[in-house]
Amino acid sequence: MQERARTTRRSLLEAAAQLFAEQGYAGTSVNDISARSGRTSGAVYFHYASKEGIALAVVQHRFATWPQLTARYADAAVPPVQRLVALSYDIARALAEDPLTRAGARLWAERATIDAPLPDPFALWTAAATRLLAEARNAGDLAKHVRPGPTARTLVRAFFGLCSLTEALEGAATVTDRLTDWWQLTLPSLGAAPGIHPWDGAPAGE
Amino acid sequence: MQERARTTRRSLLEAAAQLFAEQGYAGTSVNDISARSGRTSGAVYFHYASKEGIALAVVQHRFATWPQLTARYADAAVPPVQRLVALSYDIARALAEDPLTRAGARLWAERATIDAPLPDPFALWTAAATRLLAEARNAGDLAKHVRPGPTARTLVRAFFGLCSLTEALEGAATVTDRLTDWWQLTLPSLGAAPGIHPWDGAPAGE
Repeated sequence: MQERARTTRRSLLEAAAQLFAEQGYAGTSVNDISARSGRTSGAVYFHYASKEGIALAVVQHRFATWPQLTARYADAAVPPVQRLVALSYDIARALAEDPLTRAGARLWAERATIDAPLPDPFALWTAAATRLLAEARNAGDLAKHVRPGPTARTLVRAFFGLCSLTEALEGAATVTDRLTDWWQLTLPSLGAAPGIHPWDGAPAGE
Repeated sequence: MQERARTTRRSLLEAAAQLFAEQGYAGTSVNDISARSGRTSGAVYFHYASKEGIALAVVQHRFATWPQLTARYADAAVPPVQRLVALSYDIARALAEDPLTRAGARLWAERATIDAPLPDPFALWTAAATRLLAEARNAGDLAKHVRPGPTARTLVRAFFGLCSLTEALEGAATVTDRLTDWWQLTLPSLGAAPGIHPWDGAPAGE
């Protein structure tokens, strides 16, 4: 792709992500995306064919950043459960602050009204959590009855519900605190090594 | 209210709940509600003034059944944590099967597109869970650091996320099994008496 086309696409995606996150899919028109990005609506149709097309591109673009994020949690020197907790804070922060991630979550919530097969992030999250829990088990950090796959599935669903419901009921600023409450309630059951505390996963100052 | 008016309202509410649960708010028209209930759309407008009005009535009608449900969990002879688990299975089953509850959950998910102040069930659920956890604490069934209020808040959000995400990803039939996975992961952290198992809350055969 030419550099100029790439720049155009990026500005369209950023504008669309902001608008989808703020106003939802039905509340956002191609004209809104054009106005917010400073490009013509002809440019939107040229690059993405339709509003469905740009919604799909927003979600795919967000998925493209996932390998970079998980790569940060591959350091074998850090206990795997601690890396899992830290990853969850990173995702929670993205859900609260990053327009692409927020747009993805809102488009997922509104998927019944969108005529495009939007992929969801839960399979990726569950795979990453399964891998970290399997590492934790090999390191002897999990209780014997905790199986990585089903546990990862349960954790991801409860985590996402906690984050989205907390934002809806109390606002995005509270999500990190509620996530800490949740880990405090959840970690003891994993049988994680007693030295691991959920707040180790939060950056300093939170 | 006259008996005949009551019958009409009930049939309108049931039709509206089914349609909202199946097709969502935007996908349901007053004409659809009229056709499904076998009443005229004039009857809808006479009793509820607007589509927003009937959505609100569906949610309020569902709330009205809550005291009956919680009354079933007041038996002091049953350990309170076990009653909490049983209540969660009842709510999960209603979310999977009861049209009024399903409509309420879908309307809540679509609240941004509905021009009416829809109450949410989470405060009621959290109050009930707080009460049961406080009873459990008095009975010595909780770990010392588990505070009823914040723990109830965390449990309710994780529970609802688990149920709704499980239904979206795997279908309603799997919700009970996933709820059992979740309680198995969560109960040990509560420090609940070791004799209480999550499946005690599920009816026989599930």
